[in-house]
Amino acid sequence: MTATAVVGIGELVTCDGEADGAHPGGPGLGLRTDAALVVEDGRVAWIGDSADVPDADHRIDLEGRAVLPGFVDSHSHLVFDGDRAAEFAARMTGERYDGGGIGVSVGATRAASEHRLRELVGRRVAEMRAQGTTTVEIKGGYGLTVDDEARSLRIAGEFTPETTFLGAHVVPPEARGDRAAYVELVTGPMLEACAPHARWADVFCEPNSPHAFTEDESRAVLTASRAAGLELRVHGNQLGPGPGVRLAVELGAASVDHCTFLDEADVSALVDAADTTIATLLPGVEFSTRSPYPDARGLLDAGVSVALATDCNPGTCYSSSMPFVIALAVREMGMTPGEAVWAATRGSAKALRRDDVGRVTVGGPADLTVLEAPSHLHLAYRAGVPIARALVTRSGGWVDSPRP
Amino acid sequence: MTATAVVGIGELVTCDGEADGAHPGGPGLGLRTDAALVVEDGRVAWIGDSADVPDADHRIDLEGRAVLPGFVDSHSHLVFDGDRAAEFAARMTGERYDGGGIGVSVGATRAASEHRLRELVGRRVAEMRAQGTTTVEIKGGYGLTVDDEARSLRIAGEFTPETTFLGAHVVPPEARGDRAAYVELVTGPMLEACAPHARWADVFCEPNSPHAFTEDESRAVLTASRAAGLELRVHGNQLGPGPGVRLAVELGAASVDHCTFLDEADVSALVDAADTTIATLLPGVEFSTRSPYPDARGLLDAGVSVALATDCNPGTCYSSSMPFVIALAVREMGMTPGEAVWAATRGSAKALRRDDVGRVTVGGPADLTVLEAPSHLHLAYRAGVPIARALVTRSGGWVDSPRP
Ligand SMILES: [Zn+2]
Ligand SMILES: [Zn+2]
Repeated sequence: MTATAVVGIGELVTCDGEADGAHPGGPGLGLRTDAALVVEDGRVAWIGDSADVPDADHRIDLEGRAVLPGFVDSHSHLVFDGDRAAEFAARMTGERYDGGGIGVSVGATRAASEHRLRELVGRRVAEMRAQGTTTVEIKGGYGLTVDDEARSLRIAGEFTPETTFLGAHVVPPEARGDRAAYVELVTGPMLEACAPHARWADVFCEPNSPHAFTEDESRAVLTASRAAGLELRVHGNQLGPGPGVRLAVELGAASVDHCTFLDEADVSALVDAADTTIATLLPGVEFSTRSPYPDARGLLDAGVSVALATDCNPGTCYSSSMPFVIALAVREMGMTPGEAVWAATRGSAKALRRDDVGRVTVGGPADLTVLEAPSHLHLAYRAGVPIARALVTRSGGWVDSPRP
Repeated sequence: MTATAVVGIGELVTCDGEADGAHPGGPGLGLRTDAALVVEDGRVAWIGDSADVPDADHRIDLEGRAVLPGFVDSHSHLVFDGDRAAEFAARMTGERYDGGGIGVSVGATRAASEHRLRELVGRRVAEMRAQGTTTVEIKGGYGLTVDDEARSLRIAGEFTPETTFLGAHVVPPEARGDRAAYVELVTGPMLEACAPHARWADVFCEPNSPHAFTEDESRAVLTASRAAGLELRVHGNQLGPGPGVRLAVELGAASVDHCTFLDEADVSALVDAADTTIATLLPGVEFSTRSPYPDARGLLDAGVSVALATDCNPGTCYSSSMPFVIALAVREMGMTPGEAVWAATRGSAKALRRDDVGRVTVGGPADLTVLEAPSHLHLAYRAGVPIARALVTRSGGWVDSPRP
């Protein structure tokens, strides 16, 4: 085993400090200055003051750069083919555009070879890593047939254990004449084919969208998925008020994502479920759709557990950047930079029910992100600038992450 | 001389097409598909259809990536030392913060060694280049003494010919008892010491800020600078209505920057001056200060010439990212992606009175930016993702830009 000492850390954010009240349901930001680390065999073997750093085989001097837990992106849709940039441009400029929406992605994904899909997913994961993301959840949802969903999840599983069955993303065009039959397909053969390749099941519960799923349909999908051994997450309350949050809490889902339109009952349900169900906010979506942002400040003040993720997808947010999400959380949702960093690491790990990642702790994986900056404040201060990247230590050197 | 053929260009944006009305005072976006380029000795030697590409010594296949003119960042303040991240965080969270504001940057810049300042500027220019910026204007303005301003501009001049004397950035703390004396210093010995190192003179004309400059003071600085051989630019109408725009137009300045608070008379002055005075919008500032955005859509529709730049500076916008500025222009200011790209290249070149850069043209410099994407639309579509970088061709290879 080879030990590498990482010294010259300008600021170490562990997300594993004393509870400070700012992070409902979890410990504090755990800021340390003058800290050093030893990494051994891919794990953090020692954390302490730089004056006390033990002997090691190799030494990396970060020259004052900040070190954080690698970002945990707990919500992404990376398995797709097809380009929808023109649809985005039309939406931004208010032009009429009848390009097919999600149908474009579904058609192109079905038509893509397995080789091509794998290459696309791999490229997107590498792009995330180059921006500091070390754990990513990947959903299916652009296949929408038994075989295409199973294939999407098989491919996703080559890149992450956090794979999510999302047969209930939308009712696909060819099934719109008989929604009940589609829900039966999802809860029957599609679930059966996908469950071996998925940890999670998710549903787009959104009565405000004609092709998304109602409360009853969502409940059917989630309970069947749970019976098949999957853990639950929900897309909820994105486009308007709805049952998503309450359903997620009722079923003990790990996360309910979006949470843009909440009423008081939703918030109080999330407060009561703060140890179980995380509210995952995806402000890149609001940026990319010119929608109102969720009220992160209000949720945090009420005592809701909040996570941040990208929702990286071709339709409503094709950003894979957790630093960008952090900058938006600070600019648009009233989070402090510390709250945003916590929500993008420890908070997002909780949304995946992972206790090993999202923090820097002795014995945990050395999933670290280093900033081209002296403190975590720069993630919002330097909006849009690619200052974060995964820190890879290998035979004693700092191997730069590949550019996207 | 070595010729390199660049093929496999998914989309070539020349910003040198037929006038299409969408870009007041200039030619259109000049989109080409199936195009190829030949670069010879740092210049574009040939543009044509990929089927007709002439023989060359080397060949770079961009595999479908888009190529644009390198971004022109016509407004930046890169010569400074000191960290103001905590001031930013306090502003975002509404906390009281009495950390000294611009005085922190002035103190740290004066105290920094020449070696350190040069290193900081070099690092920031490299960071810009890694995000696709190939031409940058750099202002002084954090020295505010004769020697410190001259030193800042000497250093800036090592990185760009577009250097700007900004002794009239603010009245420095030690001079606030006698503003008239400070204006005399700026228009006298400071200008004399700086003029040999500067192409431009600029002034922060802002009656809404106590330490910025009034209309009369601004006029004195600008006319003296013009007499000393400098060309003019103005910071105007950033914090509220004011005389900046009208003064810039009256004096024939190349650009008036910010333009956040304009009245009808300002807009009509800018329309009349569309061939002379560019309105440079800096939406990164509004993002980083949570201020209202300028009305780019209204300005374009009225016929104003619009440019985009970062204003990269430690106080109000520490972003060096032109892609981020383009995404903000589309999301927040109603520009189309094409208008935003044009304003960030050809428009910004016009704001520097440069006709060689900001476009891709035979005989012009091969200052090219390549996207990790098939079209310019992705700059806004993929907000926050570092998809742009300067394309460097060297002995036939594509040399990746260094990471920041
Ligand atoms: Zn989603
Ligand atoms: Zn400025």
